[in-house]
Amino acid sequence: MALSNTRTVRIEWGDCDPAGIIFYPRYFEIFDASTTALFECALGMTKFEMFKNLEFAGWPLVKTHARFLKPTRFGDDVTVETSVKFGRSSFEIEHRLSLKGELCAECSEKRVWTIRDANGLKSHPIPPSVLAKFNAP
Amino acid sequence: MALSNTRTVRIEWGDCDPAGIIFYPRYFEIFDASTTALFECALGMTKFEMFKNLEFAGWPLVKTHARFLKPTRFGDDVTVETSVKFGRSSFEIEHRLSLKGELCAECSEKRVWTIRDANGLKSHPIPPSVLAKFNAP
Amino acid sequence: MALSNTRTVRIEWGDCDPAGIIFYPRYFEIFDASTTALFECALGMTKFEMFKNLEFAGWPLVKTHARFLKPTRFGDDVTVETSVKFGRSSFEIEHRLSLKGELCAECSEKRVWTIRDANGLKSHPIPPSVLAKFNAP
Amino acid sequence: MALSNTRTVRIEWGDCDPAGIIFYPRYFEIFDASTTALFECALGMTKFEMFKNLEFAGWPLVKTHARFLKPTRFGDDVTVETSVKFGRSSFEIEHRLSLKGELCAECSEKRVWTIRDANGLKSHPIPPSVLAKFNAP
Repeated sequence: MALSNTRTVRIEWGDCDPAGIIFYPRYFEIFDASTTALFECALGMTKFEMFKNLEFAGWPLVKTHARFLKPTRFGDDVTVETSVKFGRSSFEIEHRLSLKGELCAECSEKRVWTIRDANGLKSHPIPPSVLAKFNAP
Repeated sequence: MALSNTRTVRIEWGDCDPAGIIFYPRYFEIFDASTTALFECALGMTKFEMFKNLEFAGWPLVKTHARFLKPTRFGDDVTVETSVKFGRSSFEIEHRLSLKGELCAECSEKRVWTIRDANGLKSHPIPPSVLAKFNAP
Repeated sequence: MALSNTRTVRIEWGDCDPAGIIFYPRYFEIFDASTTALFECALGMTKFEMFKNLEFAGWPLVKTHARFLKPTRFGDDVTVETSVKFGRSSFEIEHRLSLKGELCAECSEKRVWTIRDANGLKSHPIPPSVLAKFNAP
Repeated sequence: MALSNTRTVRIEWGDCDPAGIIFYPRYFEIFDASTTALFECALGMTKFEMFKNLEFAGWPLVKTHARFLKPTRFGDDVTVETSVKFGRSSFEIEHRLSLKGELCAECSEKRVWTIRDANGLKSHPIPPSVLAKFNAP
């Protein structure tokens, strides 16, 4: 089942602060892109294509929780392992970011699947076609 | 004439890199917000309101040129002086960023006034109502 | 007691994503600067000055938890109310971000007070002079 | 001669603004990382290792000039071709960012090679060992 995805990310100079280590909001940029990468991997389309092809208007974050265990710094190539558990119209994401096999940060997210209606965005059951792709053998 | 605007910006820890000074792409974030602030000051509405109230779909950047004379660092409260010269459907912006009276960075931008059409964005003459506000005594 | 601080932050165009609302990692940039502002308010010195004047090498984040209740968007002037509870060498921060009196996001952080030693950073009891400033009438 | 380097960069959702296209300061983050990648490719060490192994304290930007020809958006995998011309203690960088063979943005930078002295950073001739690596067959 394609319920998890792993990618490598370079920590850049511009991601780091005067302490020489990553400025933690950059981790959330990495995690957000990792969530997108997981769906792209499972669905075979980019988020841009999802807006075009699916009943989809984004997956706003409801809450996130992160723990930071060891700092990373520019030049580090970190591994981000991302997995998902689906609810009806929401889903939970776990990210584990590690360097050379050592866990440096972990993050959980709860997001809502939305579609556009007259008043803006509203939550909507995750389309069966999406779930089917994640559950494909 | 309300053709220039000055604002103060705090350089934050997270704007700075491992050298302890501002990471220069953050200057362009500051300059972009300064362009917005100039229009807000002249028009008496936010950029969000401009999208609602005017023939307006953004002012994409055509080119920018910046010089960096002295670094700034977290805790600095810098002054950004922004001025504009209008063409027909484009305009030129100058930003001068200084600390305690000393010029630290300067930037010029050329931007295009756009409206939305069937194919996306197209350039459009700057509305006379906008020009009138800038030229008001 | 100066254990809380409130500041106003403009949400900028460049903080927002293609959904037109704030890209949530930007909230963590705002919260990090709000933590700094709280200490600056209590201690009467910037974070830059803290590095010079105190036994201090930064306050790395151990964990953070955030909930997002209502989106904000460019042009919004949000209020961030930040408060602190001190432990021995760590402290907990709460941020409440609201728009026109309505809570939009809240965040809790646990951070460690550090000093520099031969191997990098190590945790250290928060200096009594710092605690005294927060407890001053 | 290893005087140029090409890399691919994914434009992410969080790099884009409410117009749905890249927020241009993100281009400068991409260009800064591309400059770093060029040196890493030529020298066989990361920027972090350069600080450890070379007479080197960073390459602050003196000026930059960029033109934006076509917008890019989330999901685009852009190609960045970066080349360098060396002076004595400064160097000029050119970046060409393209999508499917079409030029979208180009940027030139002038940077100074610095070393640390008692007063902070000062410019310094680029080490011959660095130049030799770029000129190696």
